[in-house]
Amino acid sequence: MTKPTPLSGFPEFLPSQRVVEREVIATLSRTFELHGFGNIETRAVEPMDQLLRKGDTSKEVYVLRRLQEEADRDKGMGLHFDLTVPFARYVLENAGKLEFPFRRFQIQKVWRGERPQEGRFREFAQADIDIVGRDTLPFHHDVEVAWVMLEALGNLTFLPGFTLQVNNRKLIQGFYAGLGAPDVEETMRLIDKLDKMPAEQVGKLLVTEAGLSEEQAAKCLELATITATDDSFVDKVRALGVESELLDEGLTELATLINATAPLNTERVRVVADLSIARGLDYYTGTVFETRLDGYQSLGSICSGGRYDSLASDGKTTYPGVGISLGISRVLVPLISKGLLDGDRTVPSTVLVAVSDEESRGRADEAAQQLRAHNVACEVSPNAAKFGKQIRFAERRGIPYVLFATSQEDGGGGYEIKDIRTGDQVPVDPATWTPADEDMKPRVVVSTNEEKK
Amino acid sequence: MTKPTPLSGFPEFLPSQRVVEREVIATLSRTFELHGFGNIETRAVEPMDQLLRKGDTSKEVYVLRRLQEEADRDKGMGLHFDLTVPFARYVLENAGKLEFPFRRFQIQKVWRGERPQEGRFREFAQADIDIVGRDTLPFHHDVEVAWVMLEALGNLTFLPGFTLQVNNRKLIQGFYAGLGAPDVEETMRLIDKLDKMPAEQVGKLLVTEAGLSEEQAAKCLELATITATDDSFVDKVRALGVESELLDEGLTELATLINATAPLNTERVRVVADLSIARGLDYYTGTVFETRLDGYQSLGSICSGGRYDSLASDGKTTYPGVGISLGISRVLVPLISKGLLDGDRTVPSTVLVAVSDEESRGRADEAAQQLRAHNVACEVSPNAAKFGKQIRFAERRGIPYVLFATSQEDGGGGYEIKDIRTGDQVPVDPATWTPADEDMKPRVVVSTNEEKK
Repeated sequence: MTKPTPLSGFPEFLPSQRVVEREVIATLSRTFELHGFGNIETRAVEPMDQLLRKGDTSKEVYVLRRLQEEADRDKGMGLHFDLTVPFARYVLENAGKLEFPFRRFQIQKVWRGERPQEGRFREFAQADIDIVGRDTLPFHHDVEVAWVMLEALGNLTFLPGFTLQVNNRKLIQGFYAGLGAPDVEETMRLIDKLDKMPAEQVGKLLVTEAGLSEEQAAKCLELATITATDDSFVDKVRALGVESELLDEGLTELATLINATAPLNTERVRVVADLSIARGLDYYTGTVFETRLDGYQSLGSICSGGRYDSLASDGKTTYPGVGISLGISRVLVPLISKGLLDGDRTVPSTVLVAVSDEESRGRADEAAQQLRAHNVACEVSPNAAKFGKQIRFAERRGIPYVLFATSQEDGGGGYEIKDIRTGDQVPVDPATWTPADEDMKPRVVVSTNEEKK
Repeated sequence: MTKPTPLSGFPEFLPSQRVVEREVIATLSRTFELHGFGNIETRAVEPMDQLLRKGDTSKEVYVLRRLQEEADRDKGMGLHFDLTVPFARYVLENAGKLEFPFRRFQIQKVWRGERPQEGRFREFAQADIDIVGRDTLPFHHDVEVAWVMLEALGNLTFLPGFTLQVNNRKLIQGFYAGLGAPDVEETMRLIDKLDKMPAEQVGKLLVTEAGLSEEQAAKCLELATITATDDSFVDKVRALGVESELLDEGLTELATLINATAPLNTERVRVVADLSIARGLDYYTGTVFETRLDGYQSLGSICSGGRYDSLASDGKTTYPGVGISLGISRVLVPLISKGLLDGDRTVPSTVLVAVSDEESRGRADEAAQQLRAHNVACEVSPNAAKFGKQIRFAERRGIPYVLFATSQEDGGGGYEIKDIRTGDQVPVDPATWTPADEDMKPRVVVSTNEEKK
């Protein structure tokens, strides 16, 4: 086998880089669990008819085929391209065994059959939280989902800042309807293009494609310029002079959410009402979320979601849901591949236990077991090289300490430990020695110097 | 969408069942990390030519195809069917960036394009540990891999017992060669059938297919009956009167491994030299491992591996490796689906915070945040139903405590917490109240009554 080359769109991490991803996953999981979200995983495959329900993603599905199979036997299965379709299926399949409202988090890889191109992943990890009710789901769960994700992003202290942008479909659809727009859906679809197209051009399309008057189009564009970190957006919308019951409902919901989540605003993580957010073709019916990563606008929204009045339905019962999904790979791959985030070790070991000669390997193993017995991760040197070489072995892996036996000659013998960062060396008992808390496991280090890794 | 039905061979867990799987993964990860194994994940897909290197698994690969793609563009990719092929590729691809000996653990799902049938999984999780050297890898790493997996199995206290069966290819191949077997490989392949075929029948095949004399065949069968929990097997092999250098090497290695891992023997987890273990067609060159789960012999080996002199090679450099792979789904799915293992909650919440009326939801949210601030997982009641109903809401989820506000009228107000298992109710401050350690997170419960779930 010659040296293999990476497969475009299938990012993989080196061991120290994976430390970052594991820390992100652990922090997210801990936050979600503190809020009562249980974890599930769903199988990687779904029936093709389920994957194709949303017409426009059909081109991005990987279809499975068994290698030696009679033609088309497994034709009906493809890899999931998100965690929402599998979750909706899981809820229906297990509805009789689940307690509602059912809250869960799911952190898994998903696949999209994209053509290979820069920044497009064909395999990537995402973290979803959703709350699903049977028949009904009170609005306070919309607030809850926003709160939990904001808290999670806040806990990821080594990442750049985030802005969670919130809007409400009732607000904008009510506004367009109140304005007399002949095609509310099309109006919304065009407004959604504002992040890719100049406002002037969108304005023209609103007239030619959505059938609005120039004045109506101008009001729609004006609505989309409104942002606020508090409920002051309500007065700004009112000032546009449009009225409808649905608009009122949307304004109340959005103001409630913004006010309730305001305590989570920090310098790093912000929540804003942004009335340009529409979430295009997705089937949201109320709250909608998008999220921008500071300094990485070009990534687009890295954390999106919203309220579905019908996440799933079996004909008899409808399951409304609200959720939000963080693109873990989308955020981490650019930062890690630029060398801006990395782990400080390539191994979990806090200590390398040195071996002075192969005959004493057993003694080194015993010392290692004493360390492990009180949760100090360590490894024993693979060989009995010169002490300096064993130090360098530890250094190359980022292992901070080397433990070595002293006075082996006298039978019992003691141990000393060397902090190879400072050179400090002290006698210790491996059965009780404990490093500083921050040395117990690999840490994420943030670099400000970009360097292509 | 009508109610979907499970897809045969793609097991999925309910939230409380997933608690068991998460606990297994956490315990394995903790043990592996204490021994200096770093974690990696590899992409789900590999080039087909890599997946097909081992001829006999070719029929079990899932090939990927993009739905709307010009014919055959992605033809070259399939889902990995184990974690060894991807790991070997990862080592070669990143050899310049890895430190050797490189030790890693990997816990991921793998896929096999099996025909649906009882007990055959088409998607399943496994946990692999491997140590890989550049050019050379000392034998003590064989001992290490066995030690680490034995310790991990020992830590999974809620599982049935395990027997790790160890043999050595050098021992059996040296024995067959020393005996004058004309086809050592074929002899080994037939001996490997002993767990599926009576010894008498294997003996006949050894004569007809491997070209052994009846006496030689009898000795091979006799060798395969030898088992021992200590190095007493060495004398038993010697007594068969066969001599070869390779046999000596194998005997020494196996005796070393059995003696070194003996301290890990407990009533639940045992390591034995079992000279019938051959591992069939796999490319092992020394130590080989298989593992039986007590009471589940029909599962076959649930944890297998061994030593490869060449895990990977790029033509210039060879990477020897030794590893072992635990079939997580293979062990857990039967136990969980029979109801023998489950989580004691369907949610991570230790506390349900009751809501007396919707106006006081904000106060309930605050109390919940106080609990979370010192790591007590909780959820707030989704509605302000009667108190008894809220208690039952907690009960159905296995949440042990309900917190509720007292005397809301007087502005500040206090809180009481009810242990709904005992009925005990005491005044508490949510900012400081902490449950017993064992109530902090969901636990795995072992049942002795089979009940199909």
